[in-house]
Amino acid sequence: MAAAAAPPPPPTPAPEPALTLSQNTPLGHPIFTRIRLATPSDVPHLHKLIHQMAVFERLTHLFSATESSLSSTLFPSTTPQPFHSFTIFILEVSPTPFTDTPTNPFYNPTVKVVNLDLPVEDPERETFRVQNGSDVFVAGFVLFFPNYSTFLGKPGFYVEDLFVRECYRRKGFGKMLLSAVAKQAVKMGHGRVEWVVLDWNINAIKFYEEMGAKILQEWRICRLTGEALEAYGGAE
Amino acid sequence: MAAAAAPPPPPTPAPEPALTLSQNTPLGHPIFTRIRLATPSDVPHLHKLIHQMAVFERLTHLFSATESSLSSTLFPSTTPQPFHSFTIFILEVSPTPFTDTPTNPFYNPTVKVVNLDLPVEDPERETFRVQNGSDVFVAGFVLFFPNYSTFLGKPGFYVEDLFVRECYRRKGFGKMLLSAVAKQAVKMGHGRVEWVVLDWNINAIKFYEEMGAKILQEWRICRLTGEALEAYGGAE
Repeated sequence: MAAAAAPPPPPTPAPEPALTLSQNTPLGHPIFTRIRLATPSDVPHLHKLIHQMAVFERLTHLFSATESSLSSTLFPSTTPQPFHSFTIFILEVSPTPFTDTPTNPFYNPTVKVVNLDLPVEDPERETFRVQNGSDVFVAGFVLFFPNYSTFLGKPGFYVEDLFVRECYRRKGFGKMLLSAVAKQAVKMGHGRVEWVVLDWNINAIKFYEEMGAKILQEWRICRLTGEALEAYGGAE
Repeated sequence: MAAAAAPPPPPTPAPEPALTLSQNTPLGHPIFTRIRLATPSDVPHLHKLIHQMAVFERLTHLFSATESSLSSTLFPSTTPQPFHSFTIFILEVSPTPFTDTPTNPFYNPTVKVVNLDLPVEDPERETFRVQNGSDVFVAGFVLFFPNYSTFLGKPGFYVEDLFVRECYRRKGFGKMLLSAVAKQAVKMGHGRVEWVVLDWNINAIKFYEEMGAKILQEWRICRLTGEALEAYGGAE
């Protein structure tokens, strides 16, 4: 993973290489990252992220989620305990250290600093700023929920979506989000973490295999949806 | 579906065809079926059914579930409401009408009668008898749980297992169980029902397509399990 274990260097612009080396100044541009559980106030950002994902996958014709439908289904009035139903980790980034990381009884946010070769130019800073005046921006998310293996006799997690905004890609953030799900699975004694990939997406497959995943070549997904599903509404 | 809508004929042995026709007696051998929610007392039968499924799929090397692990994970002490977590429908059959179908606040059991050409010889009657002295036998089950589509902005169901014991196959019981899940999905306003099939299982694919399902050819399942998953336990 691209996260540095050492204390973060100050967020100054990178000096000239010769100067950097002679002064032992860390190379690169630090970016502070935080993974935390989503809350209902994240829904507007989540809706925009999901739409961007639909654009990326050229599947906007399948996109019909609204802020209202996401809100009522992901954060119902009797919200189950996190990790026992639909659960979302939000990835936040900031050019400066986080000053207000709250503790959470179900998941303590993970904070890491990553040194980048180049600073990130975020063209959507204002859209994804967490709150007015803050220096914190939403960079991505992962949505997952429990599944079950009868052979293992135990639950696992299924990762429905993993998304990082374009300007934050290829920096290890996707791996960071997926690793957070895997770590939580181990913590809970779960047996598996599963997700799907398009068979032509060679780069993604390589990335997942490097993370230790096996690609199941023989299984196909069957989907009953739309009118074909509705037809069962009155079935006897 | 193979279920008859007409009132069930008496469960007598089939008379001679000529006699049958002349007396307007229904043809065939009636079998009474009932689909109901599983309870903790079904765990011993479920464990045996899951093992039979592993044998059928030649995957007994992956089978490590015990009655105890199934019990604690499928029926935890704070069991969530049915359909909001792991949910099991049990298929029961009987040669005689059910006399004790209880109502349930979450799911009213579905009772149907099916006329078979030949009576079923069940070599495991005693193993799968629901209770001593009863005439009711467990014939199969379906295990499913909620999944989520961010594009639709709504939940669906994922069917992990659909299993009918060998002597009860090819009688429409699998379709009956899967239809019950689809019907429940429609009732709850869900957007999808999904499951997986092996790409070489042509008969199953044909069966699912006839039920209205689409087979997604491009997607592959990624699985992180065993030591590769455990490695994330201490990941930073």
